[in-house]
Amino acid sequence: MTKQRDPAKLKQKLLDLAKELPFFKLIGYEVVDFGPGWSTTQIRFRPELANPNGTVHGGVIASLIDAGTTHAMLTTDQFQMVRDTKGIMTTVDLRVKYLRPLDEGVMTCETKIPHIGKRISHAQSVVTNEAGKAIAIGDATLMIIAGKG
Amino acid sequence: MTKQRDPAKLKQKLLDLAKELPFFKLIGYEVVDFGPGWSTTQIRFRPELANPNGTVHGGVIASLIDAGTTHAMLTTDQFQMVRDTKGIMTTVDLRVKYLRPLDEGVMTCETKIPHIGKRISHAQSVVTNEAGKAIAIGDATLMIIAGKG
Amino acid sequence: MTKQRDPAKLKQKLLDLAKELPFFKLIGYEVVDFGPGWSTTQIRFRPELANPNGTVHGGVIASLIDAGTTHAMLTTDQFQMVRDTKGIMTTVDLRVKYLRPLDEGVMTCETKIPHIGKRISHAQSVVTNEAGKAIAIGDATLMIIAGKG
Amino acid sequence: MTKQRDPAKLKQKLLDLAKELPFFKLIGYEVVDFGPGWSTTQIRFRPELANPNGTVHGGVIASLIDAGTTHAMLTTDQFQMVRDTKGIMTTVDLRVKYLRPLDEGVMTCETKIPHIGKRISHAQSVVTNEAGKAIAIGDATLMIIAGKG
Repeated sequence: MTKQRDPAKLKQKLLDLAKELPFFKLIGYEVVDFGPGWSTTQIRFRPELANPNGTVHGGVIASLIDAGTTHAMLTTDQFQMVRDTKGIMTTVDLRVKYLRPLDEGVMTCETKIPHIGKRISHAQSVVTNEAGKAIAIGDATLMIIAGKG
Repeated sequence: MTKQRDPAKLKQKLLDLAKELPFFKLIGYEVVDFGPGWSTTQIRFRPELANPNGTVHGGVIASLIDAGTTHAMLTTDQFQMVRDTKGIMTTVDLRVKYLRPLDEGVMTCETKIPHIGKRISHAQSVVTNEAGKAIAIGDATLMIIAGKG
Repeated sequence: MTKQRDPAKLKQKLLDLAKELPFFKLIGYEVVDFGPGWSTTQIRFRPELANPNGTVHGGVIASLIDAGTTHAMLTTDQFQMVRDTKGIMTTVDLRVKYLRPLDEGVMTCETKIPHIGKRISHAQSVVTNEAGKAIAIGDATLMIIAGKG
Repeated sequence: MTKQRDPAKLKQKLLDLAKELPFFKLIGYEVVDFGPGWSTTQIRFRPELANPNGTVHGGVIASLIDAGTTHAMLTTDQFQMVRDTKGIMTTVDLRVKYLRPLDEGVMTCETKIPHIGKRISHAQSVVTNEAGKAIAIGDATLMIIAGKG
């Protein structure tokens, strides 16, 4: 049986967790907002995240999309089932198409989960620069496996 | 016209550059060895690179594959042409398939560029844990654009 | 220099070409409508397109997305440049995510090209069944290379 | 309980099935040989499979890779479990990277399943022309779901 849950409390707990996670601090990942099936997340460019040519490293953008995808899943009913049954959610694959370089300002990642299935869900992300131009698009395939509770 | 170059000097210069790059220090990326069309690169797991559940974040593995792919290209004839003409090489896309979690030891990424074209090249990577088990496979599409010299 | 062209004539010519192409007849591919950066295309299911279990073969859906992507490009300014310079357009890669089986009716593929670049463009497709449910999503990376005219 | 099975009989049955499948006849798909985790499959080019420019349509190559991947799975222990439990195997996604055009002769597709998991398996294919040059590489993600038997 599913316990009663307070969505606002769960959200606050997840936001606090994101603020404290050492990897997110390391790369400057921040959650702007999120809900069931969507998230807005950001990383501010700093020279420590750059390639030798001064533009942001592709791995930073991949990290932003990967983390943003997880945040878009965390308050879905599907993920609640994972919590309730002690199941697991895994990223089957992650893909990034790089469109433009970026060497200043904030990258903003908008993620949606347009296809949520019982087992497999498909996420789509667009990362934009401060001028609103897309610098990358990404997609991820996620698998949910129910546990025994 | 192509200037005479000393491959050993170029390689040493690139290794030095990789050691000093702030982003590589941040995530602990190290080049074990590389040559034209291949590279062996590593990241040692540490808690700062982990998800809340203690396993390495997918963005770290994506960064390792992205960086390893670049190192596999840097001493190819195609990239030398980029240097000689002041052209550019861009990663068109990067894809990672996650196979197993990892929560300790060194991840080693073996990258090959089995298909090097005049404009488009295709890289393939396998990331293994210390037991030699694949934890992720990746591929990247790279585009080379000659400059005007 | 670019010749004056009549968009309506070009479109009609391309529609006629699609109707006559033997491969399109073979798989039943039809162009419903298209313009610069978008297309609506279809294939009607018939048992000849099925797997042993009676559902449409994945290759049919891949063919629909690949062909629909081309139709979305054919009246763009970028492709006109290819015509004018005798350049080439190639599909660098095609990806299909399969969501649901289909065993009757018409599959409709809506394709857009949200990112058209000088060299690289990114297409996105959604294939739906007659009930409007997505049965597959796809994306393609296209490269345009100008000719010498 | 798993019934005793004769591998040679199963293989012959699957070869016969492939020869009779209308879709395979339509596109000229032939199984050269296959075993657990691998397959060699072919399509002979004919003008009916071509683009307006005379080269093979991308959908034909995608069909060859998709079908070859299935044949590489059909005699694995994992797929036997699907048979035994009346479960299902689905292709989660299929990706094709196009390397060279082809306008004559036989395309041969070599598929391997280097990563077979309990639920998710990853296939890799290389399609070559008669000169042995790669014209496309592909990969697929397959999901196996056990039934109730």
